Amino acid sequence: MLRHVVLMNWTEAATGEQVAEIARRLRELPAAIPEIRSYQCGDDLGVNPGNANFVVTADFDSVDDYIVYRDHPAHRKVIDELIAPILASRTGAQFSLDG
Amino acid sequence: MLRHVVLMNWTEAATGEQVAEIARRLRELPAAIPEIRSYQCGDDLGVNPGNANFVVTADFDSVDDYIVYRDHPAHRKVIDELIAPILASRTGAQFSLDG
Repeated sequence: MLRHVVLMNWTEAATGEQVAEIARRLRELPAAIPEIRSYQCGDDLGVNPGNANFVVTADFDSVDDYIVYRDHPAHRKVIDELIAPILASRTGAQFSLDG
Repeated sequence: MLRHVVLMNWTEAATGEQVAEIARRLRELPAAIPEIRSYQCGDDLGVNPGNANFVVTADFDSVDDYIVYRDHPAHRKVIDELIAPILASRTGAQFSLDG
């Protein structure tokens, strides 16, 4: 298995409602993309200064399944319509859970 | 529960052996820090250009348990002795898994 991880920072103009809608729509993706084995996302808890604002982690059985998710129209739609307009920066990676 | 996520980039001078040792020592932390509920780390798989080099994800029952890990001598030792010398950049966050 592999885990996909994304850390995002929002622009100053981003509103709480916009971010909440992103979280809601991202959490709907497992229903549309059966390749997703596990999916979590949410706001940083504010424990450490300088943290990213928002996190997505998602697990897949294979790189091919991750790519189905990455390129899936339902996922692209959330990115293009909701995330891109308020995205200041993004860092991501995918790594094996098989250690 | 909460999930701690870190994405790291290494300096040009970093060697594969150094990174492998970091992964090995990080994977020993659950034995020394019982507050860790789940711990994964590894190299980016190279699926997407521009990704971070290395990922750590770790789950905890509470913020307090995460802070025990964050400040634990065994964890600090890996950071100070192995990670800091080859760290180019780091981004992190902690978010609730309770959605």
